[in-house]
Amino acid sequence: MTSSSGLDDVQAERLARVTLSLVFEPGDPRAAKLCAELGARELVDRLRSDRAAADITTDAGTRLPFVEPERDLERAAVMGLRFVIPGDPEWPTCLDGLAAAPPLAERGGPPLGLWVRGARRLDELSDAIAIVGSRAATTYGTDTAARIAGTVATDGWAVISGGAYGVDQAAHRGSMGVGGMTVAVMAHGLDRTYPAGHVDLVDAIAERGLVVSELAPGSAPTRIRFLARNRLIAALARGTVVVEAKVRSGALNTANWTGRLHRPLMGVPGPVTSAFSAGVHALVRSGAATLVTSGDEVLEVVGRVGEHALAEPRAPERVRDRLTVRLQQVLDAVPVGRPAPTDGVARTAGIGIVEAQRGLDKLEQHGLVSFAEGGWRLTDAALAH
Amino acid sequence: MTSSSGLDDVQAERLARVTLSLVFEPGDPRAAKLCAELGARELVDRLRSDRAAADITTDAGTRLPFVEPERDLERAAVMGLRFVIPGDPEWPTCLDGLAAAPPLAERGGPPLGLWVRGARRLDELSDAIAIVGSRAATTYGTDTAARIAGTVATDGWAVISGGAYGVDQAAHRGSMGVGGMTVAVMAHGLDRTYPAGHVDLVDAIAERGLVVSELAPGSAPTRIRFLARNRLIAALARGTVVVEAKVRSGALNTANWTGRLHRPLMGVPGPVTSAFSAGVHALVRSGAATLVTSGDEVLEVVGRVGEHALAEPRAPERVRDRLTVRLQQVLDAVPVGRPAPTDGVARTAGIGIVEAQRGLDKLEQHGLVSFAEGGWRLTDAALAH
Repeated sequence: MTSSSGLDDVQAERLARVTLSLVFEPGDPRAAKLCAELGARELVDRLRSDRAAADITTDAGTRLPFVEPERDLERAAVMGLRFVIPGDPEWPTCLDGLAAAPPLAERGGPPLGLWVRGARRLDELSDAIAIVGSRAATTYGTDTAARIAGTVATDGWAVISGGAYGVDQAAHRGSMGVGGMTVAVMAHGLDRTYPAGHVDLVDAIAERGLVVSELAPGSAPTRIRFLARNRLIAALARGTVVVEAKVRSGALNTANWTGRLHRPLMGVPGPVTSAFSAGVHALVRSGAATLVTSGDEVLEVVGRVGEHALAEPRAPERVRDRLTVRLQQVLDAVPVGRPAPTDGVARTAGIGIVEAQRGLDKLEQHGLVSFAEGGWRLTDAALAH
Repeated sequence: MTSSSGLDDVQAERLARVTLSLVFEPGDPRAAKLCAELGARELVDRLRSDRAAADITTDAGTRLPFVEPERDLERAAVMGLRFVIPGDPEWPTCLDGLAAAPPLAERGGPPLGLWVRGARRLDELSDAIAIVGSRAATTYGTDTAARIAGTVATDGWAVISGGAYGVDQAAHRGSMGVGGMTVAVMAHGLDRTYPAGHVDLVDAIAERGLVVSELAPGSAPTRIRFLARNRLIAALARGTVVVEAKVRSGALNTANWTGRLHRPLMGVPGPVTSAFSAGVHALVRSGAATLVTSGDEVLEVVGRVGEHALAEPRAPERVRDRLTVRLQQVLDAVPVGRPAPTDGVARTAGIGIVEAQRGLDKLEQHGLVSFAEGGWRLTDAALAH
């Protein structure tokens, strides 16, 4: 039973973290570090009393007088948003990996908290795959993203992406299309939707999945906030698939985070003439990413050992492939047109007559040769292969 | 100076090897082994006197009475063909690797000799790259093969392939188109050309490069002979590029040989929806092949260390990418429309006013912001990125 002071503690912690999320840019590694050292409430106290380090105070101090954490929480609740923090039952432990991972582009550390919209729970994300790629994707890219999303969703995996145009929206739709769970991690406050063209999509995702952000309501997306957001996409997933990415794509930043978190990174190739696939090709070439061509291959990479072991892709077997080399040699020596006697077949094949006879009998059993008019010839079945 | 008995020796060796090439299927590992142990002339003697192992004698014995090695050599010379054997100055030493490599599909060992057509020499092949792939290639595959061949040929590398439809012919043409040397390794006797549609192409290759075969004139191509031929393509080259290959493509057999010979294997990806690229994707995925997207990347793999080191593919750098995260934060806080005063920018950015001022001055120097009407706004240059 949680005592009222226990509830007060949790609420105080939540308010402190809301405060911090309002005064610091998301993914500020110094804020994450100080919060881990001092605790959220102590850090807020120090900021208020100017007792934190000078540069921290300068940053946070400029905004601090203007923040209203309680009001923001109340207004968020009205909008159907909640602020989830470490210690809450639904806090996803997969984010802990961010504590140890080195910063990238001056963004790093676990989030102080997450604003969440949707009836599902963050801790349902134990089996999630991130699917990312270019906004300006080709239909090859979006078709592939949707197909892979549908396959992994059918297998019970949640699909995580960034709610953007191109690959992201295809991944979300591919998952929802088979009734799967999808999570959109945004780089702005959840009171609005960017891009505006995705209002309906994000509403649908909130209804069947989750929409998540490190940014408080009222925050607009910026390039830094996209970079910060990408680490969350990578950290919430078991592994990341990059479907299409040009050489300077934001998806490569997400790929970089996947590596930092020691999670499997996968890339879907495309035509080498396509600039949209060049970023993926570079990742595969460097060894950073494993080449995958389907959802099944993705599952083989991220799945439990042995569970999704695929057979090597094989074309349908043909009868003649099951023949020994020697039998193939005999078969090659049998004419199409005018039948040849056994010794003629033996000579063409370069083998003894006894062995040729045995071989021809076997081939006749396989239906590949027939004897007529004093000689052997190939059957229609043999010619069909 | 070679004495007349020395010349007789060489001629006797040549005749013995022609004999063996006429009685054994190419790439018969037993023949290669016995020839290495006993020498060609001793092996022929034993075959003639039935002193070789029973199965060997059975095979060779059936054909032996019918072969006429001197006549074949004379007729070959009339056709402009020569039979090159180990010990000849032009014998390519890169084929020696086949002695140690384990057999594959019951084909193996170095060739007993090679029938050659063309004024170039086999020992010019110290720097050669094999380019192989599907006969039923797409234009994506043939365009890519031709482009890669042109690039490596321009850099002085010979291009080796199999003279077939599809990827092979594109590789040969791509090389010849830039005046490069190309070698077609065929699976039949060089008195004719298969496919018949490539008579002119093979004539052109013989004129500017070389046409090579393990098969004596009069021999038709068979599946086993294609398998035997593939090991020669791999063995004559420093490395092999597979451009397009379905999952049951002969090119995968050549790829397998490349691995057995410990030479670099490279694969060109394509759309994952294309069955024509599925074989290549499987090779890359398994780690057997390195993904390459261009001739330059091929050269980086096969070239001498450091000679062809490529820069990571980069998009053209933009001014804002050279900014620190802090300057980007300031830039993000500057409005597009109505100018904002310095303290307003500072508050939006969440930093101190002194630092905001410094940042804005820097950005003004970069031409990204301008001060007018009492405030800061973004310049057109900033908006263009």
